[in-house]
Amino acid sequence: MNIIKCKAAVARAAGEPLCLEEVEVAPPKSGEVRIKIICTSLCHSDVTFWRLKQFPGMFPRILGHEAFGVVESVGEGVEEFKEGDTVVPVFLAHCGACVDCEAEDGNLCGKHDSAPAHGMPRDGSTRFTDANGKPVYHTMFVSSFCQYTVVDVAHLVKVDPQVPPQFACLLSCGVSTGVGAAWKVAGVGPGSTVAIFGLGAVGLAVAEGCRLRGVSKIIGVDLNPAKFESGKKFGLTDFVNPNEIDGRAINEVIKEMTGGRGVDYCFECIGLSSLMSEAFKSSRKGGGKTVILGLEMHGTPLSIDARELLFGKSIIGTLFGGLKSKTDIPILAQQYLDKELNLEDFVTHEVDLQDINKAFDLLLQGKSLRCTIWMDGKK
Amino acid sequence: MNIIKCKAAVARAAGEPLCLEEVEVAPPKSGEVRIKIICTSLCHSDVTFWRLKQFPGMFPRILGHEAFGVVESVGEGVEEFKEGDTVVPVFLAHCGACVDCEAEDGNLCGKHDSAPAHGMPRDGSTRFTDANGKPVYHTMFVSSFCQYTVVDVAHLVKVDPQVPPQFACLLSCGVSTGVGAAWKVAGVGPGSTVAIFGLGAVGLAVAEGCRLRGVSKIIGVDLNPAKFESGKKFGLTDFVNPNEIDGRAINEVIKEMTGGRGVDYCFECIGLSSLMSEAFKSSRKGGGKTVILGLEMHGTPLSIDARELLFGKSIIGTLFGGLKSKTDIPILAQQYLDKELNLEDFVTHEVDLQDINKAFDLLLQGKSLRCTIWMDGKK
Ligand SMILES: NC(=O)c1ccc[n+]([C@@H]2O[C@H](COP(=O)([O-])OP(=O)(O)OC[C@H]3O[C@@H](n4cnc5c(N)ncnc54)[C@H](O)[C@@H]3O)[C@@H](O)[C@H]2O)c1
Ligand SMILES: NC(=O)c1ccc[n+]([C@@H]2O[C@H](COP(=O)([O-])OP(=O)(O)OC[C@H]3O[C@@H](n4cnc5c(N)ncnc54)[C@H](O)[C@@H]3O)[C@@H](O)[C@H]2O)c1
Ligand SMILES: [Zn+2]
Ligand SMILES: [Zn+2]
Ligand SMILES: [Zn+2]
Ligand SMILES: [Zn+2]
Repeated sequence: MNIIKCKAAVARAAGEPLCLEEVEVAPPKSGEVRIKIICTSLCHSDVTFWRLKQFPGMFPRILGHEAFGVVESVGEGVEEFKEGDTVVPVFLAHCGACVDCEAEDGNLCGKHDSAPAHGMPRDGSTRFTDANGKPVYHTMFVSSFCQYTVVDVAHLVKVDPQVPPQFACLLSCGVSTGVGAAWKVAGVGPGSTVAIFGLGAVGLAVAEGCRLRGVSKIIGVDLNPAKFESGKKFGLTDFVNPNEIDGRAINEVIKEMTGGRGVDYCFECIGLSSLMSEAFKSSRKGGGKTVILGLEMHGTPLSIDARELLFGKSIIGTLFGGLKSKTDIPILAQQYLDKELNLEDFVTHEVDLQDINKAFDLLLQGKSLRCTIWMDGKK
Repeated sequence: MNIIKCKAAVARAAGEPLCLEEVEVAPPKSGEVRIKIICTSLCHSDVTFWRLKQFPGMFPRILGHEAFGVVESVGEGVEEFKEGDTVVPVFLAHCGACVDCEAEDGNLCGKHDSAPAHGMPRDGSTRFTDANGKPVYHTMFVSSFCQYTVVDVAHLVKVDPQVPPQFACLLSCGVSTGVGAAWKVAGVGPGSTVAIFGLGAVGLAVAEGCRLRGVSKIIGVDLNPAKFESGKKFGLTDFVNPNEIDGRAINEVIKEMTGGRGVDYCFECIGLSSLMSEAFKSSRKGGGKTVILGLEMHGTPLSIDARELLFGKSIIGTLFGGLKSKTDIPILAQQYLDKELNLEDFVTHEVDLQDINKAFDLLLQGKSLRCTIWMDGKK
């Protein structure tokens, strides 16, 4: 099989604009698949990795893990996929055959190391080479900021070609994560009260998951009031702007909004331990659950009052919303086709690959939820 | 109804020996019951309250919350209890009728404020007066270090008189808490791997709960190797002494003992946030659960790595092991009578009321699990 030369946006140094370059993409090895990326989008986890100066920050690197593509070729022994299949890559492995994959709960595959920090192919070597013949690192087992990428079959899911690329792409990370956390990790229901910290695509996908389960009280917390407007489409009913509560603590305001009790479920979708701790305080005694989705940006530890935990409170963290990718992504895709799951409103912008740095600006300025990045022009 | 004059061990100042004094115990008010305490024992939570200089430390105070007694008289409107009933008081309320008490899960009664910190009768006033006519505070709604005490019906459970007093007494707090945490909060099963931090009565009751559920790997962690010997009777299979691991971290040793994975369930039964954090690290990625039972002695916050949470790990705290006292204590009593639940081996010492300070020494020196304190001579 051949090496493919194509365009990639390479992160050469922490926090600096990505460089449009030509790279070589090696053919897939045994158990791997090479895919042509149709479109990708920017999730905040990429921003976190992009900014990290130390490991798991590694440079030069191809970021990107939320994407939609078409299978170009398959490596030795791959039977699950064939050329032309429409697929989404997923940072979390799902081999489907180990004890953990077969267990009813949980989604950490026991066969593959699921630490997304490192994110290189199983054999530790890269499939990307730059114009000077130097290796370029992968990210989160996906690296979708390239026109072609190579992923392990455990990180790939077939998706119905009827779902338009820019919407299928959302199921690859952010939206699946939020909806999954509401359904599988928290298990919200009609009577639940919910507070969501951070109203990006992940936080609003939690809201969407809650809306679809009939939750009637969904409080959003964000510094950006525009997010509340977008959020109403996903079922948000109330809003707290931490800058507009007269210096009071967020948890006090949330308790006040829930008759002094606090909420049944809090979701942290920002990635700041100070907000995780505020979420914990906002959850109610006697069963209040705090679900951590945010990837802590600075590595700051989470500090909580151990005595408050005793009142039956809990904290749980989750990757990919507790979903098993190969089983659950097709279900979400079908719910989109059945016009239940709202994916359209998550896509607020689109750019071509050469303008990928604009997608960073839009996310960081709080203007976009998700910006579709078309790898070879809009389909 | 009459005031009763009797003997009590009064805590007059933080950390100082209790004083044997004559006190007056007022009759029960509406919804309350006055009980003659037959025997009581010392739980580490009493030690924590006894040492606290600031609120919830309050002096003078009658400590004690693990006890067995007989109903002496009942207040207005009390129909659930009558004179002569054998009972155990419980620091956690269970009204049995509110939404929370009727819910399948959880054990925080929604009708009564269950914060044990304050622990005074509902109306905020005391039922105890010292020889100078000065009020003496209650503790945790029980105050069993007195020959008579007054408790709210929501804090009282009938227990089969066939269970000997010193064993029924254990169901009042420590043993129920440990067994309940294993069964209701963690839900351990035959295939589970477990680590228990702190092998006092609470920690060993967790082991006993695990043993009864067929758990085959139960690792105990304690500075005191004698506890491992006692613990074998309750199913402990392995032991880690933090002082004898060549300066390595406890979690490393536990991971090594479990093929690198870490355990399914960790229980913290000491009350030190440093050990809670060690327990969290010892729990496995992909579903590992850390159950906090210990009441943090110094109020030090619990600090954990937020990123490690993301791998599907969780922390949950619990009071009284998630048990609903009026429903579950009779079940445990029956299991004792059926010779399933081992209560005998928790009682390692006994003293008369006048030697109550010896019970403190025995617990603090790590010599006792539970020391029965007979209030009016052994029955
Ligand atoms: N656990 C997982 O599997 C998983 C998957 C995807 C994303 N993530 C993480 O989820 C988080 C959210 O991702 P996203 O793509 O939705 O990000 P985003 O940047 O689109 O959204 C973050 C939101 O948080 C708000 N915010 C920032 N600081 C705030 C503060 N101090 N107080 C209140 N609001 C604040 C921003 O205004 C923004 O609306 C990130 O930490 C990301 O790494 C985790
Ligand atoms: N959550 C609840 O409802 C509830 C109920 C009862 C007791 N408690 C709490 O449970 C804890 C245990 O109570 P107990 O009566 O069994 O106490 P205990 O004093 O009998 O046992 C504590 C054990 O911890 C060990 N220990 C102390 N420091 C240690 C360290 N640094 N490393 C390892 N081991 C250490 C001691 O050697 C002892 O064996 C206390 O915090 C108590 O307040 C909570
Ligand atoms: Zn993502
Ligand atoms: Zn697997
Ligand atoms: Zn106790
Ligand atoms: Zn109740």
